[in-house]
Amino acid sequence: MMKKTKNAITPTREEDYPEWYQQIIKAADLAQSSPVRGCMVIKPWGYSLWENIQKILDGMIKETGHKNAYFPLFIPLSYLQKEAEHVEGFAKECAVVTHHRLETGPDGKLRPAPAARLEEPLVVRPTSETIIGEMYANWVHSYRDLPILINQWANVVRWEMRPRIFLRTTEFLWQEGHTAHASEDEAREETMRMLDVYADFAENYLAMPVIKGEKSESERFPGAEATYCIEAMMQDRKALQAGTSHFLGQNFSKAAQIKYLSDQGREEYAWTTSWGVTTRLIGGVIMIHSDDDGMVMPPRVAPSHMAILPIIHKAETRAQVLEYCEKLSKRLSEMSYGDNKLRVEFDTRDIHGGEKAWEWTKKGIPMVLEVGPRDVASNSVFVGRRDLGRQNRKSMSLDELISTAVDQLEEIQKNLFDRALVFQQVNTFRIDSKEDFEAFFTPRNQDKPEIHGGFAMSHWCGSADVEEEISNKYGVSIRCIPFDTGDGEGTCIFTGKPSKQRVVFAKAY
Amino acid sequence: MMKKTKNAITPTREEDYPEWYQQIIKAADLAQSSPVRGCMVIKPWGYSLWENIQKILDGMIKETGHKNAYFPLFIPLSYLQKEAEHVEGFAKECAVVTHHRLETGPDGKLRPAPAARLEEPLVVRPTSETIIGEMYANWVHSYRDLPILINQWANVVRWEMRPRIFLRTTEFLWQEGHTAHASEDEAREETMRMLDVYADFAENYLAMPVIKGEKSESERFPGAEATYCIEAMMQDRKALQAGTSHFLGQNFSKAAQIKYLSDQGREEYAWTTSWGVTTRLIGGVIMIHSDDDGMVMPPRVAPSHMAILPIIHKAETRAQVLEYCEKLSKRLSEMSYGDNKLRVEFDTRDIHGGEKAWEWTKKGIPMVLEVGPRDVASNSVFVGRRDLGRQNRKSMSLDELISTAVDQLEEIQKNLFDRALVFQQVNTFRIDSKEDFEAFFTPRNQDKPEIHGGFAMSHWCGSADVEEEISNKYGVSIRCIPFDTGDGEGTCIFTGKPSKQRVVFAKAY
Repeated sequence: MMKKTKNAITPTREEDYPEWYQQIIKAADLAQSSPVRGCMVIKPWGYSLWENIQKILDGMIKETGHKNAYFPLFIPLSYLQKEAEHVEGFAKECAVVTHHRLETGPDGKLRPAPAARLEEPLVVRPTSETIIGEMYANWVHSYRDLPILINQWANVVRWEMRPRIFLRTTEFLWQEGHTAHASEDEAREETMRMLDVYADFAENYLAMPVIKGEKSESERFPGAEATYCIEAMMQDRKALQAGTSHFLGQNFSKAAQIKYLSDQGREEYAWTTSWGVTTRLIGGVIMIHSDDDGMVMPPRVAPSHMAILPIIHKAETRAQVLEYCEKLSKRLSEMSYGDNKLRVEFDTRDIHGGEKAWEWTKKGIPMVLEVGPRDVASNSVFVGRRDLGRQNRKSMSLDELISTAVDQLEEIQKNLFDRALVFQQVNTFRIDSKEDFEAFFTPRNQDKPEIHGGFAMSHWCGSADVEEEISNKYGVSIRCIPFDTGDGEGTCIFTGKPSKQRVVFAKAY
Repeated sequence: MMKKTKNAITPTREEDYPEWYQQIIKAADLAQSSPVRGCMVIKPWGYSLWENIQKILDGMIKETGHKNAYFPLFIPLSYLQKEAEHVEGFAKECAVVTHHRLETGPDGKLRPAPAARLEEPLVVRPTSETIIGEMYANWVHSYRDLPILINQWANVVRWEMRPRIFLRTTEFLWQEGHTAHASEDEAREETMRMLDVYADFAENYLAMPVIKGEKSESERFPGAEATYCIEAMMQDRKALQAGTSHFLGQNFSKAAQIKYLSDQGREEYAWTTSWGVTTRLIGGVIMIHSDDDGMVMPPRVAPSHMAILPIIHKAETRAQVLEYCEKLSKRLSEMSYGDNKLRVEFDTRDIHGGEKAWEWTKKGIPMVLEVGPRDVASNSVFVGRRDLGRQNRKSMSLDELISTAVDQLEEIQKNLFDRALVFQQVNTFRIDSKEDFEAFFTPRNQDKPEIHGGFAMSHWCGSADVEEEISNKYGVSIRCIPFDTGDGEGTCIFTGKPSKQRVVFAKAY
């Protein structure tokens, strides 16, 4: 068996966190940059994680009464312009379609045909409030037509100058919910309901502890009345916004004229919400769980749960080992894990066993089951768990493996969550002076500028100017105004003015 | 109970088939045109049909060894140009992104920012052979890296001058499989395997009988060596191409340099295939099964299987009827249909029972279960089946309903297929002279120019000139050269030259 002498991933998290992130993606074969600037290719192992995310979250979105639909990729320029803040927020990152045909130019090269120039350019959707609003205006006439509770799984484009795979890409995949309601209360309730769904999903499936809260005004979705978010701490102690839910008030319904006749016979504007999570979640899963040996997949969303690796040194034991593994694979594949069957990889490729085991480790599969002739003889399996590390593998009887497999997966799931929660907690500090705040966000080790202090919970007076100053000075933003801090009012550490509560400051992705 | 006096859909199929098609889509609330020219909005009831199609077909694609992945929406102009026939085929329908930012112009209006003009324009993918080929060239080095068996679910854009919902839209949804192989035989086998998957899916899930065959050269996918298809007959006797599978030879691997070192140590070009089906299938389902009362959903892909409608005339029976329906709904919802639970709608809306029943009829739900006080008293249900028509509803004991529900759905599924197959067969003719051919494709009733003769199985010498002449003269094309006609060689009815076999001529969507 290969002996572990060094980590599978170079550099380690400590050595160079951003580069470690790129290497994890490569080693686990999750995705890669494409030749189209800022756009990624999501490879099968990474896409399978996304499919599992989709499947589970889609179920939760439907459970809460929403239905899926599909709206156009293109948005006429004039629609985007209907909500002033909205267009202001997205204009700088819009891909614009201006022609609908190519032709060969005088130089013999292909070019957009001048005669096929669009009268009104089309924007590739950066988000769909405006086009969906236009349709809702068409669908809603009376209070009986409300609420409209619709979700869409789609690709969106926001031109990205500094792309980073999964975290910031020009094209990304997401779901966007868009709802319209007859009352403000109902719309506010919906906004919170979906934030809770996201938090539930992040914590219970991605094993990603999150802090729920409201965004400050400067971080609000362009055109929203209020933006709520879930924020998670990555292993470099930076924050990742993992999902957002927006209460849009009547801004978009006024822009698109979503009007209805109330049960009192009055014409009213609807109240709308929108909410979304993206393929960025995959970046979050990577950064919160993976280690210096590669990706770590939370079992509940893992593309596969276990890999069976026949270890064959001699030709004469080959048939016997393969037969044993085959039976094991069949038996495990018939078992249920949650609502699904166990997903088992039976890796019969003709490469060295140690190499194979490392490959699956780097891919983050929760359990690796190695089977050699001695395991066959003793009716056992050599079991490695991704959360415990390769050095803690142990032999287990076949019966024990079968009877504990699902529990072990759930234990891994729990361990990952607990570990991440402890990490978040020990790296979150109540900071009560400007000096401490400055020290906290000044890199302490110039060799590792990418490992940060963590989350600072500090009092803030609510001033946008202060917020901007902090951002400029320390590169730190208010991640959210959390719902629940456990302590009450205080004094702003920057201005000495009264503060209603502590807020979360952090460097962020 | 509402008495049926006329059809729910105006006009009927006989009166005006194209308009009937639009009215079905409206009455069943499947989709609608959007203000973005040529792009449709797929509404929840229509999208749910697509989700079921996706789920089943995705399972079949995975069963045959493929994995899903995701590639960029945008394709650099230069990539498209690498395969000469390919670019020729798609250049005229490409949406072109030329700018990556908007700004406010001197007139105060939003415009593409001149300073943000792209050096190389990007095409919104009309299909992904070129961008995926580029990635495969990067992934493939040795014969050990082959085959690559990947599928993608995505949106694509082909600018459409005469859009028609589901059938021809500028943006549509599809899956596109792209595979690369080390040998021609293996690639050809893959092409056929996927054609068989499509035929299996169309016939056994969409209840859509299809004819499998090869396209003539002029109807080939641009850049392919051979294109195979499944063709179905709609109720106006026109053909609908319902899926295609392409053997691409080495054309795209040469264009993108997908090379590998063979087990003989030689550098070789890979052999590639691609295959796809689109949201056009929904148009096919509508046109093959629906009637003058609305949509007819094949049970295996229906968004919901049955609607329970409490019929409440008097307030005093309300609670009793609702309770009975609630129990019925619960019991049915717990039952399995194939790999899924029965999908049951319990429609408690406070509108007239007849109106409700017609609504569900128009939506094409396979079974409508009406329950009034008398049904409660006799422990029965008034059952309507979409394939039998509203006039054939009958009372059934609760036990009988429960014990036969799944069988009835399967019977509906079978009836729809059988009916469509008979329709296809009685409208397919062996035509053996040019005169008969001409008569067959000349509208016999000038009032109903949209109802056509059907499929003509005729001998053809293989000449593209003849094919073009027929197309110009009769608006008829060769739908496919079927694999199995049951009879052999003959004489071309247009030229008198020898013909290897009969081919399928028809008007087509």
